[in-house]
Amino acid sequence: MNIPKTMKAAVLFNFGDLRLTQMPVPTLEEGEALIKVHTIAICGTDPSIIAKGWKGYPKLGEFIPGHEFTGTVVAVAPDVTELSLGDRVAVEPHKGCGRCQNCLRGLYTICLNYGNLKKGHRHYGFSTNGGYAEYAACHINTLHKLPASITFEEGSLLTGAATVLYGYERIGWIKAGETIVVTGPGAIGLMSAHIAKILGAGRVILTGTRDDRLAVGKQLGVDVTLNVGDTDIVKKVMELTDGLGADMVVECTGQAGPAAQALEIVRKNGRISYNGIYHEPVTLQLDKIVQWNLLITGPKAEGMLNLDRAIPLMADGRMNLKPLITHKFSLEEINKAFDTFTSRAGGAIKVIVQP
Amino acid sequence: MNIPKTMKAAVLFNFGDLRLTQMPVPTLEEGEALIKVHTIAICGTDPSIIAKGWKGYPKLGEFIPGHEFTGTVVAVAPDVTELSLGDRVAVEPHKGCGRCQNCLRGLYTICLNYGNLKKGHRHYGFSTNGGYAEYAACHINTLHKLPASITFEEGSLLTGAATVLYGYERIGWIKAGETIVVTGPGAIGLMSAHIAKILGAGRVILTGTRDDRLAVGKQLGVDVTLNVGDTDIVKKVMELTDGLGADMVVECTGQAGPAAQALEIVRKNGRISYNGIYHEPVTLQLDKIVQWNLLITGPKAEGMLNLDRAIPLMADGRMNLKPLITHKFSLEEINKAFDTFTSRAGGAIKVIVQP
Amino acid sequence: MNIPKTMKAAVLFNFGDLRLTQMPVPTLEEGEALIKVHTIAICGTDPSIIAKGWKGYPKLGEFIPGHEFTGTVVAVAPDVTELSLGDRVAVEPHKGCGRCQNCLRGLYTICLNYGNLKKGHRHYGFSTNGGYAEYAACHINTLHKLPASITFEEGSLLTGAATVLYGYERIGWIKAGETIVVTGPGAIGLMSAHIAKILGAGRVILTGTRDDRLAVGKQLGVDVTLNVGDTDIVKKVMELTDGLGADMVVECTGQAGPAAQALEIVRKNGRISYNGIYHEPVTLQLDKIVQWNLLITGPKAEGMLNLDRAIPLMADGRMNLKPLITHKFSLEEINKAFDTFTSRAGGAIKVIVQP
Amino acid sequence: MNIPKTMKAAVLFNFGDLRLTQMPVPTLEEGEALIKVHTIAICGTDPSIIAKGWKGYPKLGEFIPGHEFTGTVVAVAPDVTELSLGDRVAVEPHKGCGRCQNCLRGLYTICLNYGNLKKGHRHYGFSTNGGYAEYAACHINTLHKLPASITFEEGSLLTGAATVLYGYERIGWIKAGETIVVTGPGAIGLMSAHIAKILGAGRVILTGTRDDRLAVGKQLGVDVTLNVGDTDIVKKVMELTDGLGADMVVECTGQAGPAAQALEIVRKNGRISYNGIYHEPVTLQLDKIVQWNLLITGPKAEGMLNLDRAIPLMADGRMNLKPLITHKFSLEEINKAFDTFTSRAGGAIKVIVQP
Repeated sequence: MNIPKTMKAAVLFNFGDLRLTQMPVPTLEEGEALIKVHTIAICGTDPSIIAKGWKGYPKLGEFIPGHEFTGTVVAVAPDVTELSLGDRVAVEPHKGCGRCQNCLRGLYTICLNYGNLKKGHRHYGFSTNGGYAEYAACHINTLHKLPASITFEEGSLLTGAATVLYGYERIGWIKAGETIVVTGPGAIGLMSAHIAKILGAGRVILTGTRDDRLAVGKQLGVDVTLNVGDTDIVKKVMELTDGLGADMVVECTGQAGPAAQALEIVRKNGRISYNGIYHEPVTLQLDKIVQWNLLITGPKAEGMLNLDRAIPLMADGRMNLKPLITHKFSLEEINKAFDTFTSRAGGAIKVIVQP
Repeated sequence: MNIPKTMKAAVLFNFGDLRLTQMPVPTLEEGEALIKVHTIAICGTDPSIIAKGWKGYPKLGEFIPGHEFTGTVVAVAPDVTELSLGDRVAVEPHKGCGRCQNCLRGLYTICLNYGNLKKGHRHYGFSTNGGYAEYAACHINTLHKLPASITFEEGSLLTGAATVLYGYERIGWIKAGETIVVTGPGAIGLMSAHIAKILGAGRVILTGTRDDRLAVGKQLGVDVTLNVGDTDIVKKVMELTDGLGADMVVECTGQAGPAAQALEIVRKNGRISYNGIYHEPVTLQLDKIVQWNLLITGPKAEGMLNLDRAIPLMADGRMNLKPLITHKFSLEEINKAFDTFTSRAGGAIKVIVQP
Repeated sequence: MNIPKTMKAAVLFNFGDLRLTQMPVPTLEEGEALIKVHTIAICGTDPSIIAKGWKGYPKLGEFIPGHEFTGTVVAVAPDVTELSLGDRVAVEPHKGCGRCQNCLRGLYTICLNYGNLKKGHRHYGFSTNGGYAEYAACHINTLHKLPASITFEEGSLLTGAATVLYGYERIGWIKAGETIVVTGPGAIGLMSAHIAKILGAGRVILTGTRDDRLAVGKQLGVDVTLNVGDTDIVKKVMELTDGLGADMVVECTGQAGPAAQALEIVRKNGRISYNGIYHEPVTLQLDKIVQWNLLITGPKAEGMLNLDRAIPLMADGRMNLKPLITHKFSLEEINKAFDTFTSRAGGAIKVIVQP
Repeated sequence: MNIPKTMKAAVLFNFGDLRLTQMPVPTLEEGEALIKVHTIAICGTDPSIIAKGWKGYPKLGEFIPGHEFTGTVVAVAPDVTELSLGDRVAVEPHKGCGRCQNCLRGLYTICLNYGNLKKGHRHYGFSTNGGYAEYAACHINTLHKLPASITFEEGSLLTGAATVLYGYERIGWIKAGETIVVTGPGAIGLMSAHIAKILGAGRVILTGTRDDRLAVGKQLGVDVTLNVGDTDIVKKVMELTDGLGADMVVECTGQAGPAAQALEIVRKNGRISYNGIYHEPVTLQLDKIVQWNLLITGPKAEGMLNLDRAIPLMADGRMNLKPLITHKFSLEEINKAFDTFTSRAGGAIKVIVQP
């Protein structure tokens, strides 16, 4: 394939100043493939990275953000035999160093050499360049072949789905038939609710403030939606569970209120997965963890190759994330794409960009 | 409700001699409810119990076998407030003593006081009277309310489904997207395959000798069926899994050949659940357990209240076991029902009896 | 054995009014044994029960508190064959109903019928009479035979040790060689630190405010003690762990400060077990649970028969809790015993009473 | 440090023909350190490698076997900052490729690129050169710093100890107080028994055929030794466990008889870890796995960095493997060392070689 020397890319010149420019097409290091980016989805962390950077972000004026993307392999380093030119792939953002204690135990999303490029760590769109560009160089550890039945568009949501799956893995998966409350119908919340049913939950209850988002939940298979604006959530969940509480709560609002309330709606011996980003401290009735034998954890991103696990579920249509893709923009329109995403204009949930 | 003093029941008078007769309607002890039996399914263990008894079976001439049944609560002991008259219920066969180390740790299907009625152990249709009768007295620990959307007929298959779920629980549930091979399309095999998809398996491969049974598998959602008569199973599974092997094998034939072959078709770090009844010793290439880091277990019946877990999946139609119910008989026809079951006449899979 | 009709017992006549009086020796129900109490230890919850009762406590004027005791079997109900007269036993306080979903899954310390005596639940010294008396009637589910090498005195601390073990069980036991920080050198903290070493921890760090208590920790095998009065705990723990943090934190102060600080001293993918009683809400940097992949739980009392697990460790002397027993009183001196315990007079840790 | 160009090494010239010769000191690749070998222990697999090679072994005439060794860092590749010259280290034999699905999930001892040097896999002494030499080039993923309190001699046994720990990790660690039967008092069996006590086993029973080996077990803390020559093992274990069987069996003979018998001496819900090398198929009463709810696995080598976990236990003397080191030879005497090891001359258990 004819690979140009330069490419269009959205580069962060200064905090808040993301602009399209020409950049050199990246060259490949050992273990890498060059990806012609087809679709990249805006993640909730992107606006914050653009506004104020990230620990160890690349030099301003050269930094290409973006980390939820799919594309086609157009070149591979000499040692790469795992992929062939033309392969359609989804990229996961974290590549561990492969030599710290955490990586060697399979925990590459919490690599102890985070941001240390010399040791081999990569975090596309965070500490190294990402996908808001025509091309991206990605390590094969982060590349996952897409079967023909998955479109590039839907495939760009696989990293989100993988994060949700990792959350379920860490909390011991779902025991068949469980009642699960998902709080917060953002993209991760909606995926959490949808996937819960796919993994055998008995009943999924979704709570939120906006009826249009709750309606998307319904479309994705949620059994019960509760609007926190007009419902006493604790009372209602207890009613729905014969006074016992939910088997699991998956907290996806990132807000202190629901994060604390999770302990009020979970049953004895129940589990709580915190899937949000919590900017503020949260005040909990901690004693309940002990007295009620609760188990609590949260997933750090798309660990343990859960992206691989998400693919077959999406490939046969059981996992259908298309309803989450509400807007599509070209790379030239990237700032408009971000505006749409952050203002939630037109009911925006996942906004994708196509270079 | 008007409860008669006597009832029709199928009583084992001698090994192989099961006959309908009149028996007293059982009286209730503490914690028990009287169930008007509606439907009872023949289990693979029943013919063997009838042929030669079971450890600690009740006195011949008084022994009513049968343990997979549903019915209606028509009376309760004074201490029972958990159920009301008219409640529709499924019965699970094992009631632990509640005082041995295993029961206190939740392992009531491997109660250390098995068969000791004085200590409180019950195993309906095995060591105490069961359900081939108009009425049965059952402890509330074994009774599970059925929602209106579950018929008595399909509900009688819940004990089987619960056994399958317990197998998945013991082996660490299914990790999303896994490739699972189920060997043997008997009732438990078909349920194992069906339920694997409901719990998030990526791909389910079912192997067997009879095409009509494999076709039922297809109807229940199996992705790939392989007839062992004309397929090199090891070669084919390796082909289907890029040479890696299956993530999990669920062995349901009870035969030595497939039980040994399970180790040949599972991947490194894979898991094997033995769900069959193995009348013969099995010769394994044991070294592979070590060299390939395998994990092996098997479920003893419907433990850990998995019947409760099966109910919501059946209630909303995701778990659809109706295709397994091939024949229906009255209690008067019980011997004909058994003949049909054991001869697999007319493609019999699950044969139900309705008193 | 000659069992009298009445006995000495410490009865709660009114909140704060605990007095020795004569009470009928309890009669036995099914499954029970009569225990001649030898030694009972004061638990941290006892003063609070005496001050203000407990959910579902027995009638004032008849309520005998106390729940950490040992003694000798002097009578058994007709169905009890598991124990013989003269057996020396330790009593655990929780007996589940044996018929709720939690009990049937082995979770009897979080029985859903808590306090419902008719359903069979018992919580000695909380919702039913306990051990500050000459005799107590206890269900065999709560009785554990003591080998000759365990004294009644040390045996009275087995319930505490079992609670510590249950905490370790719920958090996935200790992985060999781990560095564990235990915060708070109260009885549970000291046991947690001592037992961590017995279960294979690499290094145990104990933090606290009082040097004499930290010294007891040293005596029990703790590797490093840190006085929070003169040490920056976060800095020091990081120093001791090459900047990584501890593999596990076992929080035993019950205070909000250390409970929140646990998240600052644990490593990525680390675990926190909350073993205290938390009277106040705790404000946490919850985001770290997600970003650092933490796992959090806490043990509700001595669940899963961990008392059975503690016995062999104490029997051969590896677990040596004798240094924790600082004071011994007769039953007549019970109020003095409580005063000593609550005022920590003379460095009181565990105070025992011998009827 | 002055590093010579050539070194003494034991090279396999032909199957069975291991000879001392001069070899070039290995040069370093990225991520590697050069180790001046101090002590290397003979492993049970070494004689078989020398006799007939191993899958993908290096070219005869250049192949240096040996994989259980310790030494000093004398040079590092430019990217290696984790270690300094002069660091004392233990080497573990497996280095995964770091890019296959198993490695990325932390399962580097079952790397899917086994033997593929181009992909980065290394197995010292098996598929790449090992430690029977003055120097060895080792990747930092395989190097573990030794504290001063661990001698090079004892440290050379850490890979064995790590394998034992990995076995315990895979089977769910040891639950406090458990009764564990270890079969076979070879090096791995003796370590398994010793470590079981260190991790909190209640009672360890060791079985074997040779009294002198059983005596070493006693020295290492085993509670009960049983000579299979004069004891009915099944009967005796049942006697010692009140008829229940052992909580766990750790099979270390590699023989079919004891491997099958493991199922006869384990309790309901018990666990079996197969730690041996099984050259022959094993015939099991497989049905017991199902009927008794057994859990079975086996450790593939020293996975999940268990060598790191072993170090603190050895460092403070709790793990004392010195009694296993029965013989010491110079590199020049390597064939004598092997003769001693294979003939078990002079009660040889672990035989070490010091270049």
